[in-house]
Amino acid sequence: MFSSASSPTSKFDVCAIGNALVDVIADASDDFLHTHKIRKGAMTLIDAERAGMLYDIIGPAIEASGGSAANTVAGTASLGGQPAYMGKVKADQLGAIFRHDLHAQGVHFATPPSNDSAPTGRCLILVTPDAQRSMNTYLGAAVEFGPSDVRADIIKNSQITYLEGYLFDRPEAQSAFRLAAHIVHEAGQKLSLTLSDVFCVNRHRNAFLELVKNEVDILFANENELIALYETKDLDGAIALAREHCEISVTTRSEKGAVIATAKETLNTPAAPVAKLVDTTGAGDLYAAGFLFGLTHGKPIKEAAHIGAIAAAEVISHYGPRPQKKLKELL
Amino acid sequence: MFSSASSPTSKFDVCAIGNALVDVIADASDDFLHTHKIRKGAMTLIDAERAGMLYDIIGPAIEASGGSAANTVAGTASLGGQPAYMGKVKADQLGAIFRHDLHAQGVHFATPPSNDSAPTGRCLILVTPDAQRSMNTYLGAAVEFGPSDVRADIIKNSQITYLEGYLFDRPEAQSAFRLAAHIVHEAGQKLSLTLSDVFCVNRHRNAFLELVKNEVDILFANENELIALYETKDLDGAIALAREHCEISVTTRSEKGAVIATAKETLNTPAAPVAKLVDTTGAGDLYAAGFLFGLTHGKPIKEAAHIGAIAAAEVISHYGPRPQKKLKELL
Repeated sequence: MFSSASSPTSKFDVCAIGNALVDVIADASDDFLHTHKIRKGAMTLIDAERAGMLYDIIGPAIEASGGSAANTVAGTASLGGQPAYMGKVKADQLGAIFRHDLHAQGVHFATPPSNDSAPTGRCLILVTPDAQRSMNTYLGAAVEFGPSDVRADIIKNSQITYLEGYLFDRPEAQSAFRLAAHIVHEAGQKLSLTLSDVFCVNRHRNAFLELVKNEVDILFANENELIALYETKDLDGAIALAREHCEISVTTRSEKGAVIATAKETLNTPAAPVAKLVDTTGAGDLYAAGFLFGLTHGKPIKEAAHIGAIAAAEVISHYGPRPQKKLKELL
Repeated sequence: MFSSASSPTSKFDVCAIGNALVDVIADASDDFLHTHKIRKGAMTLIDAERAGMLYDIIGPAIEASGGSAANTVAGTASLGGQPAYMGKVKADQLGAIFRHDLHAQGVHFATPPSNDSAPTGRCLILVTPDAQRSMNTYLGAAVEFGPSDVRADIIKNSQITYLEGYLFDRPEAQSAFRLAAHIVHEAGQKLSLTLSDVFCVNRHRNAFLELVKNEVDILFANENELIALYETKDLDGAIALAREHCEISVTTRSEKGAVIATAKETLNTPAAPVAKLVDTTGAGDLYAAGFLFGLTHGKPIKEAAHIGAIAAAEVISHYGPRPQKKLKELL
């Protein structure tokens, strides 16, 4: 059972802060990635010019609200939770889509839109025939998110505040991050972080390490990200360090399930079966959604892991980073 | 074999004219349709106010370029054809999505964007658990399409010009329609029409009848639409009249296949198997895509019908009105 110090009157179970993005999802070949120097399986930041150039040459696409942490809270809402989100869009058509989809899922989202000239951010996601996704993110209005957008009243009233590692790419967001961490601990709540991406970890290792050692209660990573953070030879070494730093560390390993380490134990938990793997976008986000939903609803860690696995399996069985089925009904 | 009078130098196989729309696709229950007075299975025109109200209350959605005739030419392009499209969007984010998706599929589309205040049109599509779609269309910038947007040079160079019946709801579009029909026949090419929707047929029966009797060479309808057009007791009576008026009439009957009538024969052709029916949006549009692709590539009618059935089966196996697989590879 998760030893949350949160008061039973917390209004929100999970509050997430992240880059607010609309996904533009298209199929692509491995040759296309190679020709256009797109790093397979990773998230690469691109500027407006490259975003326009890439959009001009990719195939027909569909659009779906995305953003890693936003996908996570969409998932906790779909499971029946009460989440909140903070992130920045512009008051344009894509911003309206992003806002609608969070509200329609039941997520509290009230960050005022940006008045800057940059449009709502978008992520061009190229899905190769092996269902792997390669992400090209133009942050747009998302870069405007800063400490003044951090709502202390919401964080204080959330059992867990969940931060996406992608925010580390911007100094303003890092400040917002640290402010949020301070508020979380002042209020006796829990802080969670996902490492997001191995290249992101490599770019900001020291800042990540400092936060993980001093602030993070619940850490999410995939095995490559955790190894990159600690620069260990293998996963066992990385998990041993994570155990020292965080109350709970969750290391996802795709079809091999997840390893969950606490001070007392190490659990190897299985992945859920997937009938047809279509697009792995959102797998980690939805695993976190299920796990956090379980924790904030008094479930034992093993059961939280099971809920995470179910949610991840649903999202990789179709295009798009958020559940198409009501996850509550899948449990 | 289709007795097209077209010159072998025609640049385009099919040129389509229609309402340019972006689809906003969400799941809904039958209760929701009932509560909000949404006509199941039909296309209902709505104004900006109702579009905003409905969008506020529907669930999380995905966005995909749509528009009936645009879906059809996207399908012919996916089959390896050379289609063109004419329709009106605004120069806004949804308009850019619509334009990108046609160009990315290989469809010629050069209609200048509207400068009017209305945004790019959209169709709120509610998919019930039985995979039926109920469409709520806010036309937006699409209403600006008129005779000055009809490109005679393209129509003259297209073997078949395909018009969607939905255009009949607007006088300006009706004028464009008639102008296009005139150009088609002056150039010795073929005119095709889809009746689109039974309520649309009921609204404009006399205008439709006049066009079908005097101008249309290839008519597409589902059985209810054809019966509504001719106000006959049964399908056989309606098909007998269609045979008198059009060189080819194609009547689609969902899982029962299609009935194709020419002066010489009546063919009953089967539907293609569908592994899992998800969303029937685009079924008629893609059937027409396959059939027209077959006709314009010298295939016998029976084979054209088979290509139509394959294309329709692909599109109803997933959300969204356009093919996700390269149809050419499915054949």
